[in-house]
Amino acid sequence: MMHNSAILLVSCPDRKGVVASIADFIFKHNGNILCNDEHGDEASNLFLTRVEFDVADFDFDFAEFSQRFSPLAREFQMDWRVARSADRPRVAIFVSKYDHCLQDLLYRQQSGELHCDIPLIISNHPDNQRIADFYRVPYFVIPVSKENKREAEQKQIALVREHQCTLVVLARYMQVLSHELIESIGSENLINIHHSFLPAFVGSKPYHQAFQRGVKIIGATSHYITRVLDDGPIIEQDVVRIYHRDTVDDLLQKGRDLEKMVLSRAVRWHVENRILLYGNKTVVFQ
Amino acid sequence: MMHNSAILLVSCPDRKGVVASIADFIFKHNGNILCNDEHGDEASNLFLTRVEFDVADFDFDFAEFSQRFSPLAREFQMDWRVARSADRPRVAIFVSKYDHCLQDLLYRQQSGELHCDIPLIISNHPDNQRIADFYRVPYFVIPVSKENKREAEQKQIALVREHQCTLVVLARYMQVLSHELIESIGSENLINIHHSFLPAFVGSKPYHQAFQRGVKIIGATSHYITRVLDDGPIIEQDVVRIYHRDTVDDLLQKGRDLEKMVLSRAVRWHVENRILLYGNKTVVFQ
Amino acid sequence: MMHNSAILLVSCPDRKGVVASIADFIFKHNGNILCNDEHGDEASNLFLTRVEFDVADFDFDFAEFSQRFSPLAREFQMDWRVARSADRPRVAIFVSKYDHCLQDLLYRQQSGELHCDIPLIISNHPDNQRIADFYRVPYFVIPVSKENKREAEQKQIALVREHQCTLVVLARYMQVLSHELIESIGSENLINIHHSFLPAFVGSKPYHQAFQRGVKIIGATSHYITRVLDDGPIIEQDVVRIYHRDTVDDLLQKGRDLEKMVLSRAVRWHVENRILLYGNKTVVFQ
Amino acid sequence: MMHNSAILLVSCPDRKGVVASIADFIFKHNGNILCNDEHGDEASNLFLTRVEFDVADFDFDFAEFSQRFSPLAREFQMDWRVARSADRPRVAIFVSKYDHCLQDLLYRQQSGELHCDIPLIISNHPDNQRIADFYRVPYFVIPVSKENKREAEQKQIALVREHQCTLVVLARYMQVLSHELIESIGSENLINIHHSFLPAFVGSKPYHQAFQRGVKIIGATSHYITRVLDDGPIIEQDVVRIYHRDTVDDLLQKGRDLEKMVLSRAVRWHVENRILLYGNKTVVFQ
Repeated sequence: MMHNSAILLVSCPDRKGVVASIADFIFKHNGNILCNDEHGDEASNLFLTRVEFDVADFDFDFAEFSQRFSPLAREFQMDWRVARSADRPRVAIFVSKYDHCLQDLLYRQQSGELHCDIPLIISNHPDNQRIADFYRVPYFVIPVSKENKREAEQKQIALVREHQCTLVVLARYMQVLSHELIESIGSENLINIHHSFLPAFVGSKPYHQAFQRGVKIIGATSHYITRVLDDGPIIEQDVVRIYHRDTVDDLLQKGRDLEKMVLSRAVRWHVENRILLYGNKTVVFQ
Repeated sequence: MMHNSAILLVSCPDRKGVVASIADFIFKHNGNILCNDEHGDEASNLFLTRVEFDVADFDFDFAEFSQRFSPLAREFQMDWRVARSADRPRVAIFVSKYDHCLQDLLYRQQSGELHCDIPLIISNHPDNQRIADFYRVPYFVIPVSKENKREAEQKQIALVREHQCTLVVLARYMQVLSHELIESIGSENLINIHHSFLPAFVGSKPYHQAFQRGVKIIGATSHYITRVLDDGPIIEQDVVRIYHRDTVDDLLQKGRDLEKMVLSRAVRWHVENRILLYGNKTVVFQ
Repeated sequence: MMHNSAILLVSCPDRKGVVASIADFIFKHNGNILCNDEHGDEASNLFLTRVEFDVADFDFDFAEFSQRFSPLAREFQMDWRVARSADRPRVAIFVSKYDHCLQDLLYRQQSGELHCDIPLIISNHPDNQRIADFYRVPYFVIPVSKENKREAEQKQIALVREHQCTLVVLARYMQVLSHELIESIGSENLINIHHSFLPAFVGSKPYHQAFQRGVKIIGATSHYITRVLDDGPIIEQDVVRIYHRDTVDDLLQKGRDLEKMVLSRAVRWHVENRILLYGNKTVVFQ
Repeated sequence: MMHNSAILLVSCPDRKGVVASIADFIFKHNGNILCNDEHGDEASNLFLTRVEFDVADFDFDFAEFSQRFSPLAREFQMDWRVARSADRPRVAIFVSKYDHCLQDLLYRQQSGELHCDIPLIISNHPDNQRIADFYRVPYFVIPVSKENKREAEQKQIALVREHQCTLVVLARYMQVLSHELIESIGSENLINIHHSFLPAFVGSKPYHQAFQRGVKIIGATSHYITRVLDDGPIIEQDVVRIYHRDTVDDLLQKGRDLEKMVLSRAVRWHVENRILLYGNKTVVFQ
């Protein structure tokens, strides 16, 4: 991925010639396709594709891509975007008191697993300042209460914009976001981790719910956030087996490892431009 | 397990000395504990145990076990049962048209994996006669409609009793059982396979529901049957990862393998006397 | 997949324009790409692709495909083949006494999961005749001993040819194949299931070896057969967790489920033209 | 586990009455068995058990346990040890440059998942000083070369003793230990993580070996260290699926997550007194 390459993501009505047209466009401008994934959704007659291509020898300046590609995009009614592989999306992390996802994301970012920058952390609690300091990421404490929620969210939005973040990751941030904030940041730029195997155990205390129901496996789900709680497009899920000796505390502990894995995968795929949304679903091109 | 052994299953209020008392009872009658599992459920202050012990040198006839053990059982307010390992429970299989679970159970029984006898299969369709014939198991067709449901169930109950079955396995039997039938057979003697990861996707067409929701993992659940649909104590669950290219048909196909595995494990554990019920949960001593 | 479609499999040196050229060829002859997978192997500078395309509106008769495609293939030095999706490869199963993989493959073939025909089973033992009869597949018993091995293999080869099989599946066939037979059938047309997680526990009694070593997980591996025992290109592997209470018999039992899953996946991918060989490795386009 | 409880671990020849005798001993001294696990190894006629019991009401001072229990232990030829659940074993971590396992262990210890103290880290490189500082654990740099190896190991041993550590965890420590060090610390007090699914890919660069062989799943193994490289008793293993697109770097990245999980489980089970050794195997009572 660390070639001098770019990634093109396209959704459009399925039609003969779309693969050939994109491949042709890249070829005739002297690009080289490195990786090509696609998916046809029959129900919606939608064609989705992710093309990674080397632009080292491109015959025009990459800055002109949009202008050059537009005629083709219009012809096929494409919903599309392009990014350089070298671009590092800027990601804001929202967190409350639980630190496992925060710690995990910062570690992975620093070790090079997550191809993004993390210019700030926003929390409603001061507890995770020390971790932020260790990773040298500015940490903003914005307390949230029923009374100040609107105002607090305005501050959050302002900080996210000021730091030019295009993705907000809720790393166990324990406040429900208002519709205003969701609209402001954009549903497709908001990733959450829910500590259950959705759609089972929506809402609060899912591990307690799971314990009560006597399930044999627990899960975690990362998803984009929509106006309906825990109902957004699912990006990734994973599960772990539990046993009758496991207490709620054991579930919480096993769950922490799940949450870290599932959230960090979702963030990685997002920042690597691997995810396409269609309807209430995601395609993840790996 | 194929020693000349017996299995004792006990639930009782947790109290000092219960382990020692059971172990003592077996030892003083010259038995040898082969395998001992236990679980304390703190919420309900319940102690649950499964003891497998060699009775080859027992100093009384095993037929007297109940009489001999009763004083101890009373002292500790035990809910208990005992079985010889050599006993083969008699199992009735209910099936509709889908044959994968039926085929799988019959294959495992015949190859020795399932330590039980299967004296009959009951179906509301004639389709699986040939499989039953291959495995030389009598196959009874009892059509079920809204009109004859009560009568049909009476016939089913009569057949189960006549063949002295102590367990009924619903191997993708597509009729909802009446409360009368459940009470007659007994909730703890009725095992179902539901083709979702419960409590997600209760009810009909769970794979279609899963496809619609865009989950990344599907599951299957075996459980005892209670009056509330898909709500009984869960015995076993398992899951498999799905991908955006998987159609509903692919989910059905992947699901079949899950259903076979999950149902056959539940049946094996039941016939090996490994399952204890408490509240709406199961302990499976493996 | 059951469109009026075809599958093109290509390996060639990686070069700009290859994706575009293939897509163009299909488009200009009025085909529609349904599914397109590719892989670039950097170490060998190899480009591998699988293209599934609708040929319903193709502007030439599919029988001419080879002739029409040849110029392009030559230009890019392609190693290639094409098949209609509707084609059903003919598969011979070799089996000894263990029947679980045989039974599983026949069940899956009959239920439509395996898109192939199975015109014959060859065994060195008469034991599985009854299963073959149930599935109405001719069953040939060819006993194999040190003395008659060459002659027996000649009979096997003759039968495979006579029944026009292009794939031989060793479904727990317990004889080592001679180099002559391997060459005659072709390494890439011979799929075996080895009951361990290769390269661990090569050779005989792998479950006993695993038990002895005290591993916590066992596996199974399906692979193409080469002259070196258990060393061919791996198609699929899977594993299952074992516990200290598991005896060698338990490992055998758990292993049977693994073997069935792993072998049937390999066969399915092969007959769906999803596997490409390169070096001693496989790409499986799913 | 955080009761006022103790854990008794016993290995002895299998004999009638051993369960009853232990249970009796605890009961008659007014203890309460909280959790009881056992395993009989038929091949070696060995009985292994772990008993966790509440000693809040014990009728003698726990310091006398050894003296009181000895007659029984002698009678049954027990190899045994006992520990208070509240005891926190002291653990030394050895590490080289890779920091993922170190970071993970320190995080888990600090968050309460690992019931132990970590009084020191020993490394042959200065790189991980900053992490050690963050977790406030003294970090000793002891460079190791061919020339000074003996001397360096003497220093390591001295530090381990001085800090009264009873367990040494090699968290990706990239030096082979001498037989002298192994004997000095004790094989059963030395836990290593090997980054392959043993016994596959022994020795160096296992991910490269795995990539070369074309396996479809990679693994990690934690084990006690013996004189033979990568051959000690296995404590835990886990695996992850890989795909043809995964480069060696991807394997390394996926492997890091495996290594963290597998090593931290092994350490947790060790410090919770859940592991019993017999022959070259472990029993883990969970």
